[in-house]
Amino acid sequence: MSKTTPLSGFPEWLPETELVQQELIRRVRRRFELYGYGPIQTRSVERVSDLLKQGETDKEIYALQRLAADAEAAAEAKLALHYDLTVPFARYVSENRGRLIFPFRRYQIQPAWRGERPQLGRYREFIQADADIIGQDVLELRHEAELIYLLRETLQDLPIPKVRIMINSRKILEGFYRGLGLDNLVEVLRIVDKRDKIGEEGVGRALREAGLDKEQTEACLAIARVEAETPEELDAVRALGVQDPLLDEGLTELSSILAGSRGGLSAALHIARGFDYYTGTVLEGVLEDRPELGSVCSGGRYDDLAAGGGKKLPGMGVSIGISRLMGFCLEMGLFEQPRKTPAQVLVLIHDEPSRSRSEAVAARLRARGIPCLVSDKDAAYGKQIKRANQLGVPYVWFPPAEGTDEHEVKDLASGDQTPADPDRWVPDPSVTALRF
Amino acid sequence: MSKTTPLSGFPEWLPETELVQQELIRRVRRRFELYGYGPIQTRSVERVSDLLKQGETDKEIYALQRLAADAEAAAEAKLALHYDLTVPFARYVSENRGRLIFPFRRYQIQPAWRGERPQLGRYREFIQADADIIGQDVLELRHEAELIYLLRETLQDLPIPKVRIMINSRKILEGFYRGLGLDNLVEVLRIVDKRDKIGEEGVGRALREAGLDKEQTEACLAIARVEAETPEELDAVRALGVQDPLLDEGLTELSSILAGSRGGLSAALHIARGFDYYTGTVLEGVLEDRPELGSVCSGGRYDDLAAGGGKKLPGMGVSIGISRLMGFCLEMGLFEQPRKTPAQVLVLIHDEPSRSRSEAVAARLRARGIPCLVSDKDAAYGKQIKRANQLGVPYVWFPPAEGTDEHEVKDLASGDQTPADPDRWVPDPSVTALRF
Repeated sequence: MSKTTPLSGFPEWLPETELVQQELIRRVRRRFELYGYGPIQTRSVERVSDLLKQGETDKEIYALQRLAADAEAAAEAKLALHYDLTVPFARYVSENRGRLIFPFRRYQIQPAWRGERPQLGRYREFIQADADIIGQDVLELRHEAELIYLLRETLQDLPIPKVRIMINSRKILEGFYRGLGLDNLVEVLRIVDKRDKIGEEGVGRALREAGLDKEQTEACLAIARVEAETPEELDAVRALGVQDPLLDEGLTELSSILAGSRGGLSAALHIARGFDYYTGTVLEGVLEDRPELGSVCSGGRYDDLAAGGGKKLPGMGVSIGISRLMGFCLEMGLFEQPRKTPAQVLVLIHDEPSRSRSEAVAARLRARGIPCLVSDKDAAYGKQIKRANQLGVPYVWFPPAEGTDEHEVKDLASGDQTPADPDRWVPDPSVTALRF
Repeated sequence: MSKTTPLSGFPEWLPETELVQQELIRRVRRRFELYGYGPIQTRSVERVSDLLKQGETDKEIYALQRLAADAEAAAEAKLALHYDLTVPFARYVSENRGRLIFPFRRYQIQPAWRGERPQLGRYREFIQADADIIGQDVLELRHEAELIYLLRETLQDLPIPKVRIMINSRKILEGFYRGLGLDNLVEVLRIVDKRDKIGEEGVGRALREAGLDKEQTEACLAIARVEAETPEELDAVRALGVQDPLLDEGLTELSSILAGSRGGLSAALHIARGFDYYTGTVLEGVLEDRPELGSVCSGGRYDDLAAGGGKKLPGMGVSIGISRLMGFCLEMGLFEQPRKTPAQVLVLIHDEPSRSRSEAVAARLRARGIPCLVSDKDAAYGKQIKRANQLGVPYVWFPPAEGTDEHEVKDLASGDQTPADPDRWVPDPSVTALRF
């Protein structure tokens, strides 16, 4: 295994970068839990038949096959890796509905897999952090608002560039298209969803090819241009003169969410999202200064994904693309860290025979929750300190000489060296924190 | 997706159980980091060719296939899900050796997959927590001891029954077999490794079938019976009268680890471990009172798994079977929890119109890091408190009546209800902690 090359689309980070990714995940987890969202994990595999129910995703699915398949294996349900966390979650809720308390709030931070062509921030294996709420029979609009608010707060707590969250409603788009007399709603939605990739002209051409006349095409392009920060600005949609009850319902809902959003949110009526399962609110977020990179978070309302026992289980979810954020931010040079280890202290050793004295210091620091390493090599202090710098460990500890109990600790960044008691000394959090 | 049945071998936990699993993972992570082991994650897939290098594991491997495979897909390297975290880690180190600092300490908590027949605690998808150290050219015995000590300390910090750690050395077994004049060492190792499953008699029969004569078979059974808590007790091996330099080397190393282990460790010379890649120390741990369930942790030294640039990269790793521990402990009824959510407080609502007052309380609690929920339904306080009990939320909060600022908080277990300030009150950690 000595010669290997990375697999395109399957990112792996160096230790200093994984520390950053773990910090991102820790912050997301903490924020989700503050709102009472609890962790679950679903298995990585789903039945292929369940995955294929959710529309045009089959080309992206990785199916599983046991290498030494025998009769028993062939009889197994055909399995594949999940391509998102929403479909598995809905299946989990349907399966366990009698043992859950609704509305059910959960978060889930796991990898997902899609066999897409890799590009910057778009991977074949990627980590997502999802928060969802699923109600029994009903899920109120304020639950949608809660999740949108939680998403915004979580993103603000991450050391990343500002994210612009854009929101829309499938009801508005479907109602509008229906009001135009169209019946290929799903096809039109998918075409409009490509606006960021193929541009308005491309969308126009594709719509004409899909059978829309010039007026219908113009109307579809016009509504996709509407952006609104306030409910009033949504009147631009009504000004297009299309009438439909579902359109009205969608506009009312979107107005309500905008009104309650306390800012930081805008309606953008070209947002459609690729998945078929959304039935109401849809949203996505892009880096405000780099929108061309594509979405870093997304979400929406799904009324028919989970169900069971004759009850509807409508849900709403938001999803943060952890791997994608990592990819973008690394590309921008944002996540560079000196730290290559969680150790905050490197305890030096005088020489090999006195190693146990240094180990005893480390044990005392660890007992108080301070991560540390003991020098791996007997060498001059200067060389050991160089090693601390290579590892990005912020402090070095000078153990006592034999027969004494005089310890010293040195902050390598400031150069300050002071006497210290291994049972009391605490590292300065501003020295040990990751740098963002 | 309304009718589903669980997939055998792919466990999923309910929220109250996932909270326990997250607590286990949190404690393992903290302990690994205290010793300066840093997180990494490897991709879930490896090249099939790399996985097959490691011996008799092919029947357990899940290969990947894109559902809509085309020419491009067919040309892709054949990929499969990893069956452990050691092989991917060794590949990662080989691949990144120029960018890592050695000895390199890392931990990794991820799922792995094996297409085995599912049984109690043995799953097809399972989470493992591994800590490994890899040196450049050399890895000293004290590094092995460090990992064994870390493993013991980590297990002691988990809310699980006592684990008995048994240690051996491949050098002892291979040297001993060689000293007996055997040349089918790998075959003999694999047979001896099955002792816990097929018993001593079964091993004896299998060894005879593998071509060993009666004396050789007896000797192999005799060394497998040796157990030792101290270096002196290892003399029982020398008493068997077999001579071999590798045997001597193994005995010296094992004695040294036992001597330095500060107790809590015993040598058990039947331990062989299934993987071909181990070259020295091997270990496994079982629940002291339920050894028949099989190992809950394992590990060993591997000299030839990673390499690169003309250098050897010898390693040692330990692995805790998180999913297996979950399975065993759940079976024993150990992990039952009232808590179904991370929320520590349910903020009640007077009525729907005053919901925003309760939301304001929740915002103040969250700002100080206290996870909380606001009642989802306008109902009598009694009904809302019942909901808190169902969710296992330990406190309920009575928001102020309109125009006042008089808050009260109630500990549902003790029944104590007291005035409280949402900017100062802190929950009692003994009330909010999970119960083990």
